[in-house]
Amino acid sequence: MAQALAGFRPARRTPAERVPAADALHRVPAGPVTAPHALPGFARSTVDGYAVRAADTYGASEGLPGYLQVTGAVLMGPVMGTAPAVTVAAGTAVSMPTGGVLPPGADAVVMIEYTQQVMPGTIEVVRPVAPGEGIVRADEDAVPGAALVPAGRPLRAQDLAMLAAAGVTTVSVHARPRVTVLSTGDEVVPPEAAALRPGQVRDATAVALAALVTQAGGAPAYGGIVPDDPRALETALRSALTASDLIVISAGSSVGARDETAGVVRRLGEIWCHGLAVKPGKPTLLAECAGVPVIGLPGNPRSALVVFRLLGVPLVHLVGGCATSPAGPSPVGPSMGPPEPWVRARLARDLPSAAGRLDVVQVRVRDGVATPLFGPSALLSVLTAADGYVIIPDEATGLDAGTEVDVTIYR
Amino acid sequence: MAQALAGFRPARRTPAERVPAADALHRVPAGPVTAPHALPGFARSTVDGYAVRAADTYGASEGLPGYLQVTGAVLMGPVMGTAPAVTVAAGTAVSMPTGGVLPPGADAVVMIEYTQQVMPGTIEVVRPVAPGEGIVRADEDAVPGAALVPAGRPLRAQDLAMLAAAGVTTVSVHARPRVTVLSTGDEVVPPEAAALRPGQVRDATAVALAALVTQAGGAPAYGGIVPDDPRALETALRSALTASDLIVISAGSSVGARDETAGVVRRLGEIWCHGLAVKPGKPTLLAECAGVPVIGLPGNPRSALVVFRLLGVPLVHLVGGCATSPAGPSPVGPSMGPPEPWVRARLARDLPSAAGRLDVVQVRVRDGVATPLFGPSALLSVLTAADGYVIIPDEATGLDAGTEVDVTIYR
Repeated sequence: MAQALAGFRPARRTPAERVPAADALHRVPAGPVTAPHALPGFARSTVDGYAVRAADTYGASEGLPGYLQVTGAVLMGPVMGTAPAVTVAAGTAVSMPTGGVLPPGADAVVMIEYTQQVMPGTIEVVRPVAPGEGIVRADEDAVPGAALVPAGRPLRAQDLAMLAAAGVTTVSVHARPRVTVLSTGDEVVPPEAAALRPGQVRDATAVALAALVTQAGGAPAYGGIVPDDPRALETALRSALTASDLIVISAGSSVGARDETAGVVRRLGEIWCHGLAVKPGKPTLLAECAGVPVIGLPGNPRSALVVFRLLGVPLVHLVGGCATSPAGPSPVGPSMGPPEPWVRARLARDLPSAAGRLDVVQVRVRDGVATPLFGPSALLSVLTAADGYVIIPDEATGLDAGTEVDVTIYR
Repeated sequence: MAQALAGFRPARRTPAERVPAADALHRVPAGPVTAPHALPGFARSTVDGYAVRAADTYGASEGLPGYLQVTGAVLMGPVMGTAPAVTVAAGTAVSMPTGGVLPPGADAVVMIEYTQQVMPGTIEVVRPVAPGEGIVRADEDAVPGAALVPAGRPLRAQDLAMLAAAGVTTVSVHARPRVTVLSTGDEVVPPEAAALRPGQVRDATAVALAALVTQAGGAPAYGGIVPDDPRALETALRSALTASDLIVISAGSSVGARDETAGVVRRLGEIWCHGLAVKPGKPTLLAECAGVPVIGLPGNPRSALVVFRLLGVPLVHLVGGCATSPAGPSPVGPSMGPPEPWVRARLARDLPSAAGRLDVVQVRVRDGVATPLFGPSALLSVLTAADGYVIIPDEATGLDAGTEVDVTIYR
């Protein structure tokens, strides 16, 4: 299972496109974005105080303050956005607001707390400042040409702030991976079907897969419900290949239906693996057809969603240009794209597991205790009742009650 | 600080609106959504095998198999979505695909692995099954009227699957909180400003706040850049109050500008607190004006974003109807809405902190080691270089190198 996660790394990446930076939250830069000029662009004060020559404050103390002549003020208010007209000469100081432009001649700002006005136009300074103290340099946030944001890391709020500060209003990002979701099964009808015949089920998986694709930064497309007929599936798959960066087949759950899916996929490409040592999710198929990765999911919605979170979401990130997250690790190995939320909790009861198989166990978490939820994998209610899941790795033969486990939390 | 987080709980909630269930990922149900009928609606097989009367298999073993007459098959393929025409009588079995409708008379399905065809029309069963084994009952996923999803918990992928399975195609959710972002400062110009005069800065905060609002499920609106003039701010604030569920003022950072913001807010409502024991973020203001919560943020973008993540994002969740997350806890207390991702890491160096003040320290995480990033709070590059942040709580006086810390990861 870990091998399937690590080993299936299709080469496909979506092309770059240019989008407004303000709309680029979570989009993945196709290359590093560099600073067109120095940031903040001018030396500015980080405190309220006085711009000084640092050397004029050396040796100053409460007992032996330094005295400086106040020759002007960098003003707040309507004129703040302008260069100061005053210069700081030896023995002088200029009043500064936080964020104000450092006047020529000054190399530090002494905080107002360490000064006192002794008479109009004269202050005493009771602490020395070093050059550079109380200010940021003109290029301290970025030197021209520095990478403002790296390639491959989905843009976060602060990255957008940095781009805005630099005046970068558009950014080249990987196109959202187009993920086609094909549902199969004669018994499957659309969610909006009002009355069902016995044996019919509404398509619960497709909408949830589309949601997971969206959450992972992809653009889902419904490929419709395909009957249990290899020719129909082949037609649907061929048609999806031309307009998809990833195809997900929510396959029939019976043995026969699975075999038919595999047969069709084999005709159009190469099967990388069919059958995974994971529970639930054993009948999963991974393939590549005409350069497009294809995932065949188990037929029941719960298994399908578990497997898609483990294998499909990282594939959407990969195809969409995400680099491996350096901050990882996720419980199942290196994660591409942003990490999932998780909490640490103690198991409420023993969890059995066969060695050589990765188990995904749904849990409810309350007050630091994770209670496993069981039930046939056909039941969706086990998933909706769960707050998250625990992974029992391939090599483990189970976990004892009281064991501390990492619970990946659903969001 | 913890008090500010816990204590400021405005009563405002957004009204309910009805949206298509397929578009409702992360939307917050305004009430529980109940099952209109039993789910799955019919008893079905969870395995490939034979539908039987469980009593007919009691005592069966490898050495002493039970023999059953195969009287029919629930078919896969084109006729799967129909009720079976056969009935299971004593001593008989009906061939079943996974997901097939259980025929009348049967109360269990024995897996094909535990059977063998001994002659055409006869199988031997080598393991007993209990009633209910190998099947899900007609109402096992939901009894009619059961809550399919609770109120107040943002909808997750599997919740959408459950709604689809039940044929629920629209859902009543809290409207997205309308969050108006007001930027203030004479020196602030829009991000698209090409050439700046010395002292001017582009508005880096607004776009990042809008991104955080979107991520938290809110609908951001830009209120424009307001000059450092109390009358202009009052006009802008009054106008924003009529169309906002939350107002965020990205305020001037100098003492004077802060005081002006507080003065204006006080005229229009009640200040809940002004000044927080948090670093960075001390000059934060929390208020309520005409029933609308108002957050006044520190002037520099980095402090503003840190504070908004801590205080603003939970407020967006609260106003948007999120219940307190039972799975929590977040490092700073009970979290509303979905938890943030985090990792556990060891501190690369000592972190000093004053007792009685909550410190938010930016860190880079590599191989389980969290390296603190320092620099003036005016620098955005510290935030863009960070993978996440560490909270040093009010009561702590610092953390030693090597301490295991929880790093909330940015996404």
